[in-house]
Amino acid sequence: MLAEIKGLNEECGIFAIWGHKEAAQLTYYGLHSLQHRGQEGAGIVVKQNGRLIGKKGEGLVTEVFTTETFEGLNGDAALGHVRYATAGGGGIENVQPLLFRSQNGSLALAHNGNLVNAHTLKHQLEMQGSIFQTTSDTEVLAHLMKRSGYRTIKEQMKSALTMLKGAYAFVVMTEDELLVALDPNGLRPLSLGQIGDAYCVASETCAFDIVGAEYIRDIRPGELVSISDHGIESEHYSYATYPAICTMEYVYFSRPDSNIHGINVHAARKNMGRRLAIQAGIEADVVTGVPDSSISAAIGYAEQSGIPYEMGLIKNRYVGRTFIQPSQSLREQGVKMKLSPVRAIVEDKRVIMVDDSIVRGTTSKRIVSMLRDAGATEVHVCISSPPMKHPCFYGIDTSTHEELIAANHSVEEIRQIIGADSLTFLTVENMLEAIGRPAINETCGQCLACFTGNYPTEIYPDTVLPHEKELIKK
Amino acid sequence: MLAEIKGLNEECGIFAIWGHKEAAQLTYYGLHSLQHRGQEGAGIVVKQNGRLIGKKGEGLVTEVFTTETFEGLNGDAALGHVRYATAGGGGIENVQPLLFRSQNGSLALAHNGNLVNAHTLKHQLEMQGSIFQTTSDTEVLAHLMKRSGYRTIKEQMKSALTMLKGAYAFVVMTEDELLVALDPNGLRPLSLGQIGDAYCVASETCAFDIVGAEYIRDIRPGELVSISDHGIESEHYSYATYPAICTMEYVYFSRPDSNIHGINVHAARKNMGRRLAIQAGIEADVVTGVPDSSISAAIGYAEQSGIPYEMGLIKNRYVGRTFIQPSQSLREQGVKMKLSPVRAIVEDKRVIMVDDSIVRGTTSKRIVSMLRDAGATEVHVCISSPPMKHPCFYGIDTSTHEELIAANHSVEEIRQIIGADSLTFLTVENMLEAIGRPAINETCGQCLACFTGNYPTEIYPDTVLPHEKELIKK
Amino acid sequence: MLAEIKGLNEECGIFAIWGHKEAAQLTYYGLHSLQHRGQEGAGIVVKQNGRLIGKKGEGLVTEVFTTETFEGLNGDAALGHVRYATAGGGGIENVQPLLFRSQNGSLALAHNGNLVNAHTLKHQLEMQGSIFQTTSDTEVLAHLMKRSGYRTIKEQMKSALTMLKGAYAFVVMTEDELLVALDPNGLRPLSLGQIGDAYCVASETCAFDIVGAEYIRDIRPGELVSISDHGIESEHYSYATYPAICTMEYVYFSRPDSNIHGINVHAARKNMGRRLAIQAGIEADVVTGVPDSSISAAIGYAEQSGIPYEMGLIKNRYVGRTFIQPSQSLREQGVKMKLSPVRAIVEDKRVIMVDDSIVRGTTSKRIVSMLRDAGATEVHVCISSPPMKHPCFYGIDTSTHEELIAANHSVEEIRQIIGADSLTFLTVENMLEAIGRPAINETCGQCLACFTGNYPTEIYPDTVLPHEKELIKK
Amino acid sequence: MLAEIKGLNEECGIFAIWGHKEAAQLTYYGLHSLQHRGQEGAGIVVKQNGRLIGKKGEGLVTEVFTTETFEGLNGDAALGHVRYATAGGGGIENVQPLLFRSQNGSLALAHNGNLVNAHTLKHQLEMQGSIFQTTSDTEVLAHLMKRSGYRTIKEQMKSALTMLKGAYAFVVMTEDELLVALDPNGLRPLSLGQIGDAYCVASETCAFDIVGAEYIRDIRPGELVSISDHGIESEHYSYATYPAICTMEYVYFSRPDSNIHGINVHAARKNMGRRLAIQAGIEADVVTGVPDSSISAAIGYAEQSGIPYEMGLIKNRYVGRTFIQPSQSLREQGVKMKLSPVRAIVEDKRVIMVDDSIVRGTTSKRIVSMLRDAGATEVHVCISSPPMKHPCFYGIDTSTHEELIAANHSVEEIRQIIGADSLTFLTVENMLEAIGRPAINETCGQCLACFTGNYPTEIYPDTVLPHEKELIKK
Repeated sequence: MLAEIKGLNEECGIFAIWGHKEAAQLTYYGLHSLQHRGQEGAGIVVKQNGRLIGKKGEGLVTEVFTTETFEGLNGDAALGHVRYATAGGGGIENVQPLLFRSQNGSLALAHNGNLVNAHTLKHQLEMQGSIFQTTSDTEVLAHLMKRSGYRTIKEQMKSALTMLKGAYAFVVMTEDELLVALDPNGLRPLSLGQIGDAYCVASETCAFDIVGAEYIRDIRPGELVSISDHGIESEHYSYATYPAICTMEYVYFSRPDSNIHGINVHAARKNMGRRLAIQAGIEADVVTGVPDSSISAAIGYAEQSGIPYEMGLIKNRYVGRTFIQPSQSLREQGVKMKLSPVRAIVEDKRVIMVDDSIVRGTTSKRIVSMLRDAGATEVHVCISSPPMKHPCFYGIDTSTHEELIAANHSVEEIRQIIGADSLTFLTVENMLEAIGRPAINETCGQCLACFTGNYPTEIYPDTVLPHEKELIKK
Repeated sequence: MLAEIKGLNEECGIFAIWGHKEAAQLTYYGLHSLQHRGQEGAGIVVKQNGRLIGKKGEGLVTEVFTTETFEGLNGDAALGHVRYATAGGGGIENVQPLLFRSQNGSLALAHNGNLVNAHTLKHQLEMQGSIFQTTSDTEVLAHLMKRSGYRTIKEQMKSALTMLKGAYAFVVMTEDELLVALDPNGLRPLSLGQIGDAYCVASETCAFDIVGAEYIRDIRPGELVSISDHGIESEHYSYATYPAICTMEYVYFSRPDSNIHGINVHAARKNMGRRLAIQAGIEADVVTGVPDSSISAAIGYAEQSGIPYEMGLIKNRYVGRTFIQPSQSLREQGVKMKLSPVRAIVEDKRVIMVDDSIVRGTTSKRIVSMLRDAGATEVHVCISSPPMKHPCFYGIDTSTHEELIAANHSVEEIRQIIGADSLTFLTVENMLEAIGRPAINETCGQCLACFTGNYPTEIYPDTVLPHEKELIKK
Repeated sequence: MLAEIKGLNEECGIFAIWGHKEAAQLTYYGLHSLQHRGQEGAGIVVKQNGRLIGKKGEGLVTEVFTTETFEGLNGDAALGHVRYATAGGGGIENVQPLLFRSQNGSLALAHNGNLVNAHTLKHQLEMQGSIFQTTSDTEVLAHLMKRSGYRTIKEQMKSALTMLKGAYAFVVMTEDELLVALDPNGLRPLSLGQIGDAYCVASETCAFDIVGAEYIRDIRPGELVSISDHGIESEHYSYATYPAICTMEYVYFSRPDSNIHGINVHAARKNMGRRLAIQAGIEADVVTGVPDSSISAAIGYAEQSGIPYEMGLIKNRYVGRTFIQPSQSLREQGVKMKLSPVRAIVEDKRVIMVDDSIVRGTTSKRIVSMLRDAGATEVHVCISSPPMKHPCFYGIDTSTHEELIAANHSVEEIRQIIGADSLTFLTVENMLEAIGRPAINETCGQCLACFTGNYPTEIYPDTVLPHEKELIKK
Repeated sequence: MLAEIKGLNEECGIFAIWGHKEAAQLTYYGLHSLQHRGQEGAGIVVKQNGRLIGKKGEGLVTEVFTTETFEGLNGDAALGHVRYATAGGGGIENVQPLLFRSQNGSLALAHNGNLVNAHTLKHQLEMQGSIFQTTSDTEVLAHLMKRSGYRTIKEQMKSALTMLKGAYAFVVMTEDELLVALDPNGLRPLSLGQIGDAYCVASETCAFDIVGAEYIRDIRPGELVSISDHGIESEHYSYATYPAICTMEYVYFSRPDSNIHGINVHAARKNMGRRLAIQAGIEADVVTGVPDSSISAAIGYAEQSGIPYEMGLIKNRYVGRTFIQPSQSLREQGVKMKLSPVRAIVEDKRVIMVDDSIVRGTTSKRIVSMLRDAGATEVHVCISSPPMKHPCFYGIDTSTHEELIAANHSVEEIRQIIGADSLTFLTVENMLEAIGRPAINETCGQCLACFTGNYPTEIYPDTVLPHEKELIKK
């Protein structure tokens, strides 16, 4: 499904590299391949002649950076970030990396994830005299580091990280090193790669393929990796780790050509589709996926069921920030923007429509209706994940929704609301087996909080909006 | 395959509408859905308060038109065009619609196709005192009309059209009517639709789906349709018609959700893939398609063969005009731009790579090499069309190529050049059967000139570049 | 006064150069110094490797051309143009130079002035089959040339020029030469200069100073100059010349640092101010000029009268196309845009306000009112030209005005309308003596048509708008 | 002289308003009139529905703000800033107003001036755990306020201001009030005005004229003014005031239509010119000023001496950020960018060239040379201020210069270096009498530090660059 349509968004992608003479350019290409993780802003900080220099802006990577950018932005190390801005949190000052200047040097900071105790920590920091220039969580780490009392940046960082709760992949760059840290649950993906003698890190491995880097391994929960001219060093700032990889990265967020902890996303999705086919067991004429993220699952479904896969829905490319929205009257006349059904394929057919998830249900309802208008005789909706019943506090933007449809309605009710002939959700067990990784109650597990309500960290009261309180499992 | 990579480009898309109070906006959405037919320039001419007003620019539809455009650009009829500029033929003056002003009124003109006697006609017109402000063929029609001696625009047009040879879908707009004409071979697609009381025409039916229009029928070879406030009228300016629909529209150009003369493009491509699988009969582990245009054929191949379809190649979205090209050194390090292989899928696998065509062979060679670098043990290339041995003079930009690889090499030689383990081309017969339409020697046929050298029109000597002479079948 | 405020605008500036390896860049700087002659569009055509290549756009020279422009736009000859677009005549196609392509070569064309028989000629040409793509007069010359039957461009041009009536400075560029022509009255300025071995022409000599060129001489009425690799050649296409230089060039249009036919514009304006002071003989405390064009006259007035010159009015710089206009309510609250009075200077003072001309009177009224609001006890308006009673048909945009105030009102009535304590216009005699050049009834004279109604050419009935008919002196 | 040429730049302009329903728009026009004080960046923070919302960017006011900005940016109070970025201090994060978010509310901060103990204070704050996101002095105030321990913003500000040394005009905006403070020396100008019921403050009074506000009075040294819905309140955070108004504001920075502490800038400059004429007593043919800032002085010189004032030098308008710099070879050929001499005026003349100051001498040298090349027989340089021998630490950007020519050379040596026939500097006494205000050793005086080395505040060692140490008077 389309992020813009569904309103299910994660907050960032990170790429960093140390020790390559075209560091800034490689970061550009790396960020470009992570563009799907955030389209609202992009920034790159470069270490050039021993100084950190930054350039950032609102919009796509290709809008923020031009040929002229790189005339002035060379250097041998770089840290880049793409950002999805949650409602109300826009503005150029929130675009990362954040860059802090002190008399002892500079510090650039990029973050992917969401802290659950940010509000509490900010309150404490402000009581102690800290002032904040952004509304993002990210700035908290810099303040905690500065106040830690330690002398080296690495010690400051180790001290500060122990105070954070929630999901975070942090990359810090100074004039001397790159410091890379992952939260003790490893909720967000972050991988380590190598290009010649240079090391790089990226939120997804697809960035390595684009820049010609070799994948080494994933950053481990609770690990702090330091990359400098002296090479690479790893230590753990915390051993109280409890791996809980975000399952939605497999289901929806990541690019199909990325691997997360050794498992290819496309392959996992295809397996989900296969198991969904077995679960559903529906008779139909065609299988179609909602582009782009549900194509893999739909193909798996088709292969398993023997029902042919067809392009029953097509996505309009070239829809960017500058696209003019149709007026209400044009919408009512049926002007489509991002997704259109293919009449020749669905007309007089029983259609299985595979999608990755249902958040509010409005999009599913619209697509079912489009397919029927295009002549489908039956529309069976098959979702390659379980019902989302609980809000996410780890960086997935479901907090702006007034309601998760599955938190308030049974599957049968949802089916009626979206107008489908049948509705099947993949079970948690099938989803985990499709990924091939056991659940959270073992040492290397998946976070299933949005499906089960079992949150891998404690949840701070101030993080939770009133209407969400009841959604949190006791 | 990607137009930008392959250098196989058609020259335009047209959308026009008469009698709708949001004509300009609908044309915007229509053009947007035809963006794949031309990304170098876009223009819209609107009839507003009885006057024709134009706006055009270089770039994508979303770059040329902004919200502000439509504050000033309303009206009840509009004609729009997207253009692919051939080498050397760029510049704002070539962006269409062309707009001619005379003391009796204005005339806007949009064209899709290529005239084979443009050079000869231009020469004659210049001898008679005409001057040209563009380097495109399109301007010729306006001059011929003006010089025809007839009083009405329709008579002028009928007279002028009889002098043209080649491929053309022309739409002319005056303050009084929309005139729509297709060449006697019907080489380029052009369809008629309806939104409420308003009529519209479009190069592809996908535009109708986007704007909520209903498809009526395709414009017929040799037909001249007039649309005005008095309704719609059809006549034939020529009955010497000889239908020869461009086969490459099915193979490569059109959007999969479009129908051309009643046949869905996705369905035709999937059939091509099925027949290709039967032809090839190769043992392998995965089937992958080159995105975007070869996906349908690859799925058909997979279904027929039982070999699973996988996303072995992934396309980088967001690559537009403002994308910064990697330097030579970065390219050599393996920085990829538009297409990257998915190691997790192809590693240690025998891969069938389905593509729609081979023009020069350089792209196929690069993809085969990428797949091998990503660990494929075998790479079998299956092409869902026959070898392209002859240049096209009807609007497909192969004339800039110094050579068509298939014109100079056997299939075995091509296989060696691109480094594949095997190479299979779909036969002409299988391609036609997949489309479901008989060949050119019957009354409703397909143009196969680029495969067979049987050109459906005479070819003027001055149209043909020296190196192409030998490629034309005697 | 400010062109934008007054609505008194001329239509162009031209710069061209032949035989300099940085031709395009020099044309950029030359056009830049002529920017005051037209701010709506700019274009440069360059001869590069024997081909003509053009780039044009709407806006200021610095907006249309960027560093990237000149990466692709070199060559050894260039022709540039800045344009002021009259109402309704905007659009990219009217931006010059116009570029015509024929099978024998290309032809670029730039024009400053206005033809009085353009309408008639266009009608005749259309009858013969010509089609027009612009609404400007300029295209007419190209059609006449093409239809002349002559073989060489120079002969074509000589033939065509004899058919034109009105004001024109034409520069034509082909792959082989630059052809420069001035109308038989020499209404518009055009000068010849030299940089090393290269020759250049410009609408004003200030362009020569900017690019480091040496002034040679002015182009003569009826002259056709050819500049090529073989050097420079002059001939006359007409000897029926009757010099009538536009007086408003001295009064208002040209930059003060330009010389026209050997007379410096600043010096002429200062003399006008001196003679105006003698004429007016008013007692006052301060003299102030309306920036920018009236400063010279105000200084002359101050010197002659002994009344100190002060900056009683100041112009807001940085007001360009992107300036946001204040809302009506803000205007009423006194928000000023382009001009503001200096209270400290005019408060409790008797002020002589020198301006160059009064067209509609609305601006004068506003300035008088501003000065009074700022505390001036008396405001005496002194105009350094005679009342404008007759429309101009030679390129000055007074045709959009519904009325010239001086055509319908006596001086005393105008004084009352604008609210001045006194109003003095320079007499025709004093103006001519200030310039130092005798009037139109001698061989080297000034055009005074807008003041006296004596038009130096015949006026074609179809050129004249109905409301202007009565303004033309019989 | 031109700021860009001379490298003598001040760092800002401020405009703020409270209680007007078009606050944002008025701030736009106010900033626009202060554009000469800073062209590198602009920002506006608006109080809208009780929240502070900001928009800022690099470039001119008209580049940063568009019509669309104000569709979303309304509200009833606003604070705006234009910035000149010193070398190395660019970047979007330094553009003001800075906006700080805390859990108790937001705080926007704009600053004009320069703190001499910023380095020391930053060091102390960092020791206490503060982190800085900008390289500007301005952020220091926010940190001091936060750490002051006081509860109300006003008390925090009063406490913090007492720790600052140097030149500052600060405006702070919260959701509840506007707080306006001036340093105890009153080095930078800041005035209070009124529009209907709304109060506004501006760095120069010209902003009041533009927005239709009435001038009330100047903010006093050591004063803290609070403006809120409850009206206006004044108090002094310091009574240890020692007025020392920056003299260069009169000489060069401010717009001629501004008044500073009751004295009009144009009038003061004209008086400087008059006294300079008496001092110099040179025989010559013409007086010319270097535009824009020296025109007033040149006119005063001409009036006093009886030598006519002429426009011997003309400035090229439209030279903005997008202007393409000429290549070295074009420069050597004499391509001019910003200033050109008028040959017709200076040829064969003895020229008095009036300029406001000499910093490095390179510009004066270039202008003298241009005038000689244009035919001047003698060039006498008259400077309307004394030699600048000492660096400024209060916001004038002379710190990037390796040397002030007058610190190292006698007047006669400077004359030889710049190639003038004579060189006259206005004496300190004449300059002060021209302004009409006694010097610094009295209670209401002028800062003369750059001329005399008498700094009105203590100078912190860490502020002074090594090469400047010897320039500070012991």
